[in-house]
Amino acid sequence: MITLYHCVDARSFRALWALEEVGVAYELRMLPFPPRRLAREYLEVNPLGTIPFLIDGETRMTESAAICQYLAERYAGPPLAVRPDEPGYGAYLNALHCGEATLTFPQTLVLRYSTLEPPERRLPQAVADYARWTLGRLAAFETLMDGADYVAAGRFTVADISVAYALMLLKVVGLFDQAPESMKAYYRRLRERPGFHRAKDAQTTAAAEQLHAPQKQNAPPS
Amino acid sequence: MITLYHCVDARSFRALWALEEVGVAYELRMLPFPPRRLAREYLEVNPLGTIPFLIDGETRMTESAAICQYLAERYAGPPLAVRPDEPGYGAYLNALHCGEATLTFPQTLVLRYSTLEPPERRLPQAVADYARWTLGRLAAFETLMDGADYVAAGRFTVADISVAYALMLLKVVGLFDQAPESMKAYYRRLRERPGFHRAKDAQTTAAAEQLHAPQKQNAPPS
Repeated sequence: MITLYHCVDARSFRALWALEEVGVAYELRMLPFPPRRLAREYLEVNPLGTIPFLIDGETRMTESAAICQYLAERYAGPPLAVRPDEPGYGAYLNALHCGEATLTFPQTLVLRYSTLEPPERRLPQAVADYARWTLGRLAAFETLMDGADYVAAGRFTVADISVAYALMLLKVVGLFDQAPESMKAYYRRLRERPGFHRAKDAQTTAAAEQLHAPQKQNAPPS
Repeated sequence: MITLYHCVDARSFRALWALEEVGVAYELRMLPFPPRRLAREYLEVNPLGTIPFLIDGETRMTESAAICQYLAERYAGPPLAVRPDEPGYGAYLNALHCGEATLTFPQTLVLRYSTLEPPERRLPQAVADYARWTLGRLAAFETLMDGADYVAAGRFTVADISVAYALMLLKVVGLFDQAPESMKAYYRRLRERPGFHRAKDAQTTAAAEQLHAPQKQNAPPS
């Protein structure tokens, strides 16, 4: 059984959404955010204290976009994955990586230095720098997509999950309105997928069951 | 013929190293750093103005770690790639992503706000925050590696290139001495590979030929 450690709507949502699209059985373990402060016992499971953390037999994974590809390749294949001999393979891998490294990480800086840090540690310059950076990279990514409905191979793949999460985070950060129109429309289409809704429902149900229950239920599996 | 746009020792070094390990023919186009300011004509090739930029037929790629996987899967397979049915597949994908998103991006902040920005725009707090962040993530990654010689599958793969570049950048940023001893030893082993030296030599030769030649030779291919 696959186990996913997750915080509501955090990066690990990519992994949860991929699990739902792939349709494999999993156990969802909800953590309060940020787990490294609010769920110290989690450090015994993942010393990074970060989410996602996926356990599948001997496999341990911490990178949300990598987990999407892993699940698609191991448990589904095409259409959710793109095969190396398909023309869209390069675009698929590029979007998987770009969604996190280029389109999400800079937003975490914006969030950190505008909201998460106490007022005396906020850095308006870094917030402005990386808001501009994010929107610039998003505009360039739009150019790469060239009007296509999906990021690769003309169909929905897990690479769309990687990019869509970056767009979902833009809403949290307050930059979504400044995104290119075609990227907003792309995101709205993706979030109509039944897999997206199942993932949203799964985290809501699991949070209600686990995050208000006694602390012991959040302890790492023995 | 594959074309790679590259700046000396920048992230695109991952792609160059992977090209040498895979052993496929390629054309190397050197750019001054940062290209978006010093080689404006490059924006016609890649509107992002970033490197790497890889062209392979209809394929266009901008993410260095994705390029490593692409080249390994398309042109080599195992041992440089790890197959989905191998036990190390999850660790392979995780390291490919982690090397850039988690271990490299935070270092670019350190570099930017300690060195690249003019003095009045430097942010010592962000430098300290992300230096600590980088070293913390590196320590956690060391735990995931669990004393192994390579990041996945017990052999050298392109995922090692992704992580090794993060360690190479630590030297530039001035944090290498603070890295865990086992990670320093890992990096020293990797840079003994003939493929690493061929990549270093290739960029030195190409830079000497192209970067001091008339500007026209750096123009995008017609």
